[in-house]
Amino acid sequence: MENGSKKWGFEANNSKALMTASAITVRGVLNTLMANLNKQDQRPLIPFGYGDPSAFPCFRTTCIAEDAIVDALKSAKYNCYAPTVGILPARRAIADHLNRDLPFKLSPDDVFVTLGCTQAIEVTLTVLGRPGANILVPRPGFPYYEAVAAISNLEVRHFDLLPGKGWEVDLEAVEALADDNTVAIVVINPGNPCGNVYSYGHLKQIAETARKIGIMVIADEVYAHLTFGRTPYVQMGSFGSIVPVLSLGSISKRWIVPGWRIGWLVAADPNGILQKSGVIDSIVSCLNLSADPATFIQGAIPEILENTKKDFFLKIVNLLREAVDKCYDRIQQNPYITCPMKPEGSMFVMAKLNLSLLEDIKDDMDFCLKLAKEESVIVLPGIAVGLKNWLRITFAIEPSSLEDGLGRMKSFCERHAKKQ
Amino acid sequence: MENGSKKWGFEANNSKALMTASAITVRGVLNTLMANLNKQDQRPLIPFGYGDPSAFPCFRTTCIAEDAIVDALKSAKYNCYAPTVGILPARRAIADHLNRDLPFKLSPDDVFVTLGCTQAIEVTLTVLGRPGANILVPRPGFPYYEAVAAISNLEVRHFDLLPGKGWEVDLEAVEALADDNTVAIVVINPGNPCGNVYSYGHLKQIAETARKIGIMVIADEVYAHLTFGRTPYVQMGSFGSIVPVLSLGSISKRWIVPGWRIGWLVAADPNGILQKSGVIDSIVSCLNLSADPATFIQGAIPEILENTKKDFFLKIVNLLREAVDKCYDRIQQNPYITCPMKPEGSMFVMAKLNLSLLEDIKDDMDFCLKLAKEESVIVLPGIAVGLKNWLRITFAIEPSSLEDGLGRMKSFCERHAKKQ
Repeated sequence: MENGSKKWGFEANNSKALMTASAITVRGVLNTLMANLNKQDQRPLIPFGYGDPSAFPCFRTTCIAEDAIVDALKSAKYNCYAPTVGILPARRAIADHLNRDLPFKLSPDDVFVTLGCTQAIEVTLTVLGRPGANILVPRPGFPYYEAVAAISNLEVRHFDLLPGKGWEVDLEAVEALADDNTVAIVVINPGNPCGNVYSYGHLKQIAETARKIGIMVIADEVYAHLTFGRTPYVQMGSFGSIVPVLSLGSISKRWIVPGWRIGWLVAADPNGILQKSGVIDSIVSCLNLSADPATFIQGAIPEILENTKKDFFLKIVNLLREAVDKCYDRIQQNPYITCPMKPEGSMFVMAKLNLSLLEDIKDDMDFCLKLAKEESVIVLPGIAVGLKNWLRITFAIEPSSLEDGLGRMKSFCERHAKKQ
Repeated sequence: MENGSKKWGFEANNSKALMTASAITVRGVLNTLMANLNKQDQRPLIPFGYGDPSAFPCFRTTCIAEDAIVDALKSAKYNCYAPTVGILPARRAIADHLNRDLPFKLSPDDVFVTLGCTQAIEVTLTVLGRPGANILVPRPGFPYYEAVAAISNLEVRHFDLLPGKGWEVDLEAVEALADDNTVAIVVINPGNPCGNVYSYGHLKQIAETARKIGIMVIADEVYAHLTFGRTPYVQMGSFGSIVPVLSLGSISKRWIVPGWRIGWLVAADPNGILQKSGVIDSIVSCLNLSADPATFIQGAIPEILENTKKDFFLKIVNLLREAVDKCYDRIQQNPYITCPMKPEGSMFVMAKLNLSLLEDIKDDMDFCLKLAKEESVIVLPGIAVGLKNWLRITFAIEPSSLEDGLGRMKSFCERHAKKQ
């Protein structure tokens, strides 16, 4: 029996679902772009791709958070396994944190500690999946929902966000899409990829629509409190007595620590509908089978949530406000892309490619591949978030890099412009 | 439309697979026992359930490891998202760490950083699952394999470990169980729950058997190097040129930090069979959809693996050796339980209940429930690891607690003994 000729009985799970699901993540698309960089280019890479400014010194997290981790670690109380649902002090601190702005009180039992918002999404869709079920997801949106749905027995039905109306949810479309097998609607607020912040009134309308259809709301609030426009941030959970809400959050964005991998999945449901329908038990079962966040990071959560200074939050929000001003201004000065609305929150803006003005650019993916190669600028093609021939640009980078990157983008467009 | 009477369209995924899978984890069974404790009992709880001695001061991890985490955190280089497969320095350090004892060289590309060994198991079984496929799993074993298989399209077929032969694998049974749909055999060495350490010769026999059948070996080596008997620890990957090996490991046990949630999944396969068969690509796809270990913990891995002092490892192994001596001795003095073999590794021993000598004990679960209630001693019933009417006892606890717990167990047995 020779090595080369042996027949092996195993084969990989190259199921279309898994491979497709993996390819449509933001990570997957950005990996493709990164592979297209020109290694000869001496200029610094401009990363407009991820919502992760942690590498820039001005966006460094607060020492309160770092020290909280060190203290938890050095206490040696958190080297042990954690309970499935998270340690009680972390659950209590997260409930208290959210209770500041809710019309009712969450208990620690409503809170599940997760590996960032990512695992909260994974658990939520796993719990809701069953053959035939469908879920309503925004377009544009965050493709991880589509990816997880693809392996969780959930058909995705897209409703549009309306660029002419501040990227609000097309509620008529939502009602038209739903049927007896619809289980939930996903609302991302503050919005990724559009930078929208929904008003109290619009969120209430969403809640009422969901109630009418008889579905729960999955509120992706990973960008909570990162707002810098006129509209204040309101928790979707505020409407938990109208409709059951699963709220997904994290310290990743507000504290600029996405690599710490800690977040939460919270049932904002004062009527106990999720408990009665078995959703809560199913969440626990699912977590029993999943990996947990490091225990000492959980141990640091009370200190981080309770004692981070307002100054830090203000600094970050001011940085983002200045960045979005500059970014919006530069996009206005670039005739080859159009931005329908100045973002009021999150770290992203959506801009439309004016392809008719460009000579040899086929579509958004082509634009982004060439931009990576020629200018060492990484931008996410809109197709990755559901809007073909748009771009998702993060403005959450250092001001000088932002200026540099948008300048390179403009030169790139001019070089590829149709001759007048 | 009233709150109470509303019909909601969602329902939980209470699929039998998910609920059953969740219930059969060690966590699930121990949670049941913990719920049975007598809160009036003033004595300290004796935790013979988990392989997690981190709460005992004598088992505190090395300051090298703690300082490595602090340094990585304070560098602010690791607040960012990590690549799907783990950061390169961690992958390289893990490859180097394993290469010290391998007859060929792993490259960083063979290494995937995971959330402890748990996620390594999850990814491996997800990748191998397909309708009709089956996997060979030891009995007794680690029930997380059964749990993940139940939701991954993998039928579990059990082969026995032989108590009279040092808990070696029943290789004839393995050959008889396998068919064309068998994809892998799971080998846990050093053994959980039996404390066995397999010789070079026996591991080679397993590799040759797997090759003959045409299946890969999943080598669960989470207890690597925790050996204190006559048989030295040998990596299953040493036989990677006979059969492709996926080796699963972690710092959880050797460094006594299970709550840090960092481990690895490594392809020890110098012939590149796993690459050719698509298994490696499928691992990457699966990781693209999964949560990652905290980036700064990954950043600490090179320092932890390269610079932990031999003294620390010696101290831990000596503690375990003394504990197993005491534990084995006390079990010998208890006529109501029998231990077929003194453990040479890991943190566990299997002991058989002599039910015929006990009056009002129905089975192992009944024994453990009553023991928890009457003596505040938590022991895992053998049924949870596949052997009814046995017990899995961890000896990895502080010496005084070990003594106390085994003493309480003996009193318990005497109180429940049949009258002569």
